[in-house]
Amino acid sequence: MEIEIQLTTEPIAREPLPPKLAGSAGAWAEFMGIVRDEEDQRTITALEYEAYVPMAEREMRRILANLGTARPCLYVRVIHRIGVVPVGEAAIWIGVAAVHRTEAFALLAEFMDRLKQDVPIWKLRALNAEEREGAELL
Amino acid sequence: MEIEIQLTTEPIAREPLPPKLAGSAGAWAEFMGIVRDEEDQRTITALEYEAYVPMAEREMRRILANLGTARPCLYVRVIHRIGVVPVGEAAIWIGVAAVHRTEAFALLAEFMDRLKQDVPIWKLRALNAEEREGAELL
Repeated sequence: MEIEIQLTTEPIAREPLPPKLAGSAGAWAEFMGIVRDEEDQRTITALEYEAYVPMAEREMRRILANLGTARPCLYVRVIHRIGVVPVGEAAIWIGVAAVHRTEAFALLAEFMDRLKQDVPIWKLRALNAEEREGAELL
Repeated sequence: MEIEIQLTTEPIAREPLPPKLAGSAGAWAEFMGIVRDEEDQRTITALEYEAYVPMAEREMRRILANLGTARPCLYVRVIHRIGVVPVGEAAIWIGVAAVHRTEAFALLAEFMDRLKQDVPIWKLRALNAEEREGAELL
């Protein structure tokens, strides 16, 4: 199973199924986790994410390789945004290609659970309009 | 839960999260079912899908509305291609928006199971290179 991991401070764009998998992949499952306008009952305009970058990348790769033994997929790509992520924009995008959909759905859902538990990427803070302006000036 | 269903003979392009849901949706899950180059141990170049169109649309809408009571999502859109679908191209694309990912994943997986069982869309035949050429001339 090919694994690609990317941490970025830029907006995330969805990727298509890699063309080389046309013919072998029967399933392309994607998930985008998007910042909502509410966090802990408070209206926000952005979330700020922080990460231990090399450790987070290593850990994501390890989790995926591990899950891939029980849920054999062809390819998985994870893009996680860090820094300030405005409401309505994606904090994470994942694409999973597999021969059949069952493995792709399982890998995707299980990875998201493990990501929240085990990967050193966290919400540093939720920002309201004023704080967000301050954060973007930094 | 808003439901959009479309049957088409044209190639399918993925849709983005509807802009009006930016802020409320925390999850955007997508699935693409793609024609593989093998069907029943035989090398193929395309699959031909047939449907009872109005009944298939009605049935998909009914299944989604039903699943949505247990898995409340914000929005779901299904595009199913019919006619000749070449290897490497999508026969179906589904996008589900929800506040949280759990509902989106569940609705997506359960809908795909129900689609195969209950919706009058079926693989009419698998085509090899020669048959595909014939089908495209029709």
